[in-house]
Amino acid sequence: MIYPQWRQQLVRSLHVHRSKPEAKYFQAANVTSNGIPKVRTMVFRGFAENTSALLAVTDSRSEKVSEWRSSLKSELHWYFVKSREQYRILCDVTVVCQDNDEALEIVGEGYAQTKEMKQLYSQQWQHLSKRARSGFFCPPPKSAIDYQQNSEDEDAGQFSSDETTSEQTISQHFALLIFAPYQVDYLDLKTSPHTRILYSLRNQHWQSKSVNP
Amino acid sequence: MIYPQWRQQLVRSLHVHRSKPEAKYFQAANVTSNGIPKVRTMVFRGFAENTSALLAVTDSRSEKVSEWRSSLKSELHWYFVKSREQYRILCDVTVVCQDNDEALEIVGEGYAQTKEMKQLYSQQWQHLSKRARSGFFCPPPKSAIDYQQNSEDEDAGQFSSDETTSEQTISQHFALLIFAPYQVDYLDLKTSPHTRILYSLRNQHWQSKSVNP
Repeated sequence: MIYPQWRQQLVRSLHVHRSKPEAKYFQAANVTSNGIPKVRTMVFRGFAENTSALLAVTDSRSEKVSEWRSSLKSELHWYFVKSREQYRILCDVTVVCQDNDEALEIVGEGYAQTKEMKQLYSQQWQHLSKRARSGFFCPPPKSAIDYQQNSEDEDAGQFSSDETTSEQTISQHFALLIFAPYQVDYLDLKTSPHTRILYSLRNQHWQSKSVNP
Repeated sequence: MIYPQWRQQLVRSLHVHRSKPEAKYFQAANVTSNGIPKVRTMVFRGFAENTSALLAVTDSRSEKVSEWRSSLKSELHWYFVKSREQYRILCDVTVVCQDNDEALEIVGEGYAQTKEMKQLYSQQWQHLSKRARSGFFCPPPKSAIDYQQNSEDEDAGQFSSDETTSEQTISQHFALLIFAPYQVDYLDLKTSPHTRILYSLRNQHWQSKSVNP
């Protein structure tokens, strides 16, 4: 398996920063149906096996999921402090979640290996910490806080019960995001002049070009 | 002058991280005319005096400037490592640059104090380091590298000449960006459960609401 140069470089940057947990945090930008730009930090969950597709997980009730349903594009962004490198990775997004009947729903065609989707989906659930799993059984993101309910939850210890944190019972709100890159803008601020390389995927081959920063 | 709570909190977060130069780096997202999301790191250059508008500078030949000309919206993003806080600041963008006759051109109406624009523009140029100023006299961002030209430049030491780094001679490629916020999404990951507060500007007043994370 020969990976594109930018992916090898990204793996190197992650390795150099392995002592910093925040090196696994990237930013994902998207566009709302009204054409408004959005961006937030997400946790990098590795590459889909033997590919350059990047993985993340989220709550299917979060705004970004409905926004991606209307426009399946994302630019991912990393800035590495020690090595002073920036990666901007333009991607087609695939959302894997559950429909109302708790069957697997796949939104998007950016990632071709649809056969292994179910396995990838449960694997990613199993890789989560108990604490992260319990988050998917909490009230919906951005919903109004019900203070009475919250104090009852605390009494009952709801969010740490075995049921909600089991590796087997996947929350119906669990969503896997697969980002399939097709354009990468790499910037190295350590060199003088700065190094900037543009990569683009054409006919399944990655091409690169050095440009002025 | 009473500032909105999110701005006071942001100033505090910047102060807590003042030993880290990268704390001044934020991400700015925008949308291209084709509806593609974009995001990159920029350097925070402070607030416009007595306002909550955020400042940044860039090269007017960069892609983001022409993209903002077609859609004057941006979401700015900060993630602070030590305090585990995320800010997402949705803004109207004003681009201040020079037209072909080197007169000041103002694109966008998000920032009302247009009188002081000229002063703000030259101030920001003067605040740049010599090195940063010289960048505006370099070949356009993303242009093909002319290796012959580059070696001649090195011989002549072009990019450190006094002319190109003077405080007085503002490069015709220098652009000031003014981000006028109208919606802020604040997330504090240190608390349990996480704290999320939404702020929005209505009739010139900021309102806030605590929601589930």
